[in-house]
Amino acid sequence: MRTLIKDIIGKEGESVELMGWVDARRDHGKLIFIDLRDRSGIAQVVFLPSNKEAGELAKDLRFQWVVKLSGKVSRRPKNMINLEIETGEFEVAAESLEILSRAEEIPFDPAAEISLETFLDWQPFALRTEKSRNIFKIQAEIVRAFRNFLIEKEFVEVQVPKIVAQVTEGGANVFKLDYFDSKAYLAQSPQFYKQIMVGIFERVFTIGNVYRAEEHSTTRHLNEYTSLDLEFGFIEDHSDVMDLENELLVYIMDHLKKTCAREFKFFNFEIPKVPQKIPAIKLREAQKILKEKYGIDCQNEPDLEPSHERQICEYAKKEFGSDFIFITHYPVEKRPFYTFPDKDDLGYTKSFDLLFRGIEITTGGQRIHDYQMLVENIKKWKIDPEKFSFYLQAFKYGMPPEGGLAIGLERLTQKILNLENVREAALFPRDMNRIDILLSSLKK
Amino acid sequence: MRTLIKDIIGKEGESVELMGWVDARRDHGKLIFIDLRDRSGIAQVVFLPSNKEAGELAKDLRFQWVVKLSGKVSRRPKNMINLEIETGEFEVAAESLEILSRAEEIPFDPAAEISLETFLDWQPFALRTEKSRNIFKIQAEIVRAFRNFLIEKEFVEVQVPKIVAQVTEGGANVFKLDYFDSKAYLAQSPQFYKQIMVGIFERVFTIGNVYRAEEHSTTRHLNEYTSLDLEFGFIEDHSDVMDLENELLVYIMDHLKKTCAREFKFFNFEIPKVPQKIPAIKLREAQKILKEKYGIDCQNEPDLEPSHERQICEYAKKEFGSDFIFITHYPVEKRPFYTFPDKDDLGYTKSFDLLFRGIEITTGGQRIHDYQMLVENIKKWKIDPEKFSFYLQAFKYGMPPEGGLAIGLERLTQKILNLENVREAALFPRDMNRIDILLSSLKK
Repeated sequence: MRTLIKDIIGKEGESVELMGWVDARRDHGKLIFIDLRDRSGIAQVVFLPSNKEAGELAKDLRFQWVVKLSGKVSRRPKNMINLEIETGEFEVAAESLEILSRAEEIPFDPAAEISLETFLDWQPFALRTEKSRNIFKIQAEIVRAFRNFLIEKEFVEVQVPKIVAQVTEGGANVFKLDYFDSKAYLAQSPQFYKQIMVGIFERVFTIGNVYRAEEHSTTRHLNEYTSLDLEFGFIEDHSDVMDLENELLVYIMDHLKKTCAREFKFFNFEIPKVPQKIPAIKLREAQKILKEKYGIDCQNEPDLEPSHERQICEYAKKEFGSDFIFITHYPVEKRPFYTFPDKDDLGYTKSFDLLFRGIEITTGGQRIHDYQMLVENIKKWKIDPEKFSFYLQAFKYGMPPEGGLAIGLERLTQKILNLENVREAALFPRDMNRIDILLSSLKK
Repeated sequence: MRTLIKDIIGKEGESVELMGWVDARRDHGKLIFIDLRDRSGIAQVVFLPSNKEAGELAKDLRFQWVVKLSGKVSRRPKNMINLEIETGEFEVAAESLEILSRAEEIPFDPAAEISLETFLDWQPFALRTEKSRNIFKIQAEIVRAFRNFLIEKEFVEVQVPKIVAQVTEGGANVFKLDYFDSKAYLAQSPQFYKQIMVGIFERVFTIGNVYRAEEHSTTRHLNEYTSLDLEFGFIEDHSDVMDLENELLVYIMDHLKKTCAREFKFFNFEIPKVPQKIPAIKLREAQKILKEKYGIDCQNEPDLEPSHERQICEYAKKEFGSDFIFITHYPVEKRPFYTFPDKDDLGYTKSFDLLFRGIEITTGGQRIHDYQMLVENIKKWKIDPEKFSFYLQAFKYGMPPEGGLAIGLERLTQKILNLENVREAALFPRDMNRIDILLSSLKK
């Protein structure tokens, strides 16, 4: 019966069976020490000369070998206590050793600083570092918190397809697919489906991969990423969606505090504080601030450039002490056809982006729920409404005022952990040059 | 402040604000009644002649219109109690009415039996029926139970890409993609990634869409479906994976009992019973039974035909009283190259399928974790190991004995609810002929 490594704490005198990876081996001639790692932690195991068979085997052990061993737990002498690891007051004297799997010579020193390219080339191995494990443990907890929060709010989770016949946001930047004898596309978002599902469940969320065929190679773009999507009905306007996101972010950070204290300690980071009321300004106000405070003239632009987003976040930090700021009221022509126009602010929409530490992590807003208005808008966008007849059914047969948002999981993870590149927060990131290995190497 | 419909129970004398869809309207001349539905239930609302303004508006109300109304809750007279609905002892006398959204004439009588084709053509509307809502509520709870169970067992959730450069299970039945200047594929399963992640977290799960370009048009196949995947290390063999699935299924059904009693009552179904120990037989034993009990000669086949699966399930029900049966030890040549061979049963593998009510809902088993053995096997399959060099890193640098499984969510949902066609258990099912609308209509 296996004992997890963290559970040897306090078990002095007891026999245990441990399984894990060799994290380090120190050969002192008569004595061999290894650090054994499993999912719960690290412990020191000592091979004593009194146990010849295990000791002989232990001589072969190398980094990343996988072993099963039995032994007796003891309390370390005071001068041998290692406060760096949780089990540091204990060690295990091995009685038997079985090698479950060997490892070849490792490609680079795992303690060394490696380039992102090297990291990506060697992910199946490189992800084993404590840093990577912590990043993706935190990511898993973000997803869990997102779900728990929404389930508490009576949202229903839905699974929706990614192969689509029409493109949600217009024709650009979409991956094409051979679908039997037809052409199809990879969905840029679950937008249409989550809206349809508001007609069924009022409140829905969905988590899944989305696809952007953007020819970017930046620190903030991925061509395939995980979108945390929600949509709900019977709202007053976009501010209900913003309020929900505000509450959601408070919940996520609280959850991380409870579940990932150890991981954040590793990074030596504070978990971001979310204000009870995240500041919100209109795009035009943001542009005015950029002009007045930073001398940047972008008042005729329909959107913020990445550098502007960074500056507005700087401003929000200074002015409101907030890592987050909502930008609202993007112009009609800059948002998709389903975005609700603000009749009190003609030419602008009840839409928002949420910026967090210099980057947009959410797009959301109120949607047009009135069938006629939606059809008219589609025509204004020079699209044939017939193309969206399936989607339009949802509105033809009665849809409440509704809205929603999408959060990019990798960007949120990246910014919570102040990682330089979004690729560090994505398992097996897809970009223009790489699908696991470099595409250039595939073509050979 | 909105009150949910179910919360009017016991609130006689109180004023409430309700929002929802008109589920029915009964015009009795002086009195107009509507059934109002929201996500929590249905309630009767009465428009009394004393309130002229609301009454006038109410005359226009039609099926599926979306409204907001205020009114006073009262207890119905004894002879007016409706036991069919949870709020049936109460009703609301409307004081004001606001129409949030109108609906056009509906395309068919929602109470009528419609064909699956008609259902699929009209999904955004047709999914609003109680039956569909119940199916997908139950599906959401299956997913939730899957996750909760695994999180309790210290599995970590991972998000992995679906765009891949190599095909996991061989070249057939895969969707091709234009990926910038390269060709790529849609993943048939997250197999490689979940295995890699065992090296990082020991125990992982992932939920996502998978893709099969099979030219099938059956009641059991989808071309895009949701796969519930798990993988874990430090196993003895495939029986650990089967035991975990057994426990998982017990957990899921218990969870459904707690969360979906109302939904199952609608179907008039019992939640399936999962034996504490699901019976398990080798493929060859199954074939022998088919021969002896049913006169079917398939002993030279490497797999079971759909009709054989149905018969073996019949047998399991009769013999063991079980809706579930594991079939183990598929021949080496029938399973992917990473499947662990059974050295005590040469030519056969430590793999299994789980059959449930006549259909395979799971494939799983122990995987080859030894690097050299895996490379040799890839060569035996006449594949260049270089093609899988990225994946192979995980094994080159130390991997414990490991295994896992995948459950098809739609099939599991289908069979729990005894639905005839798997499409009834998939939101917006993709098949050879349809992406929301018929592909033939697209080509026009």
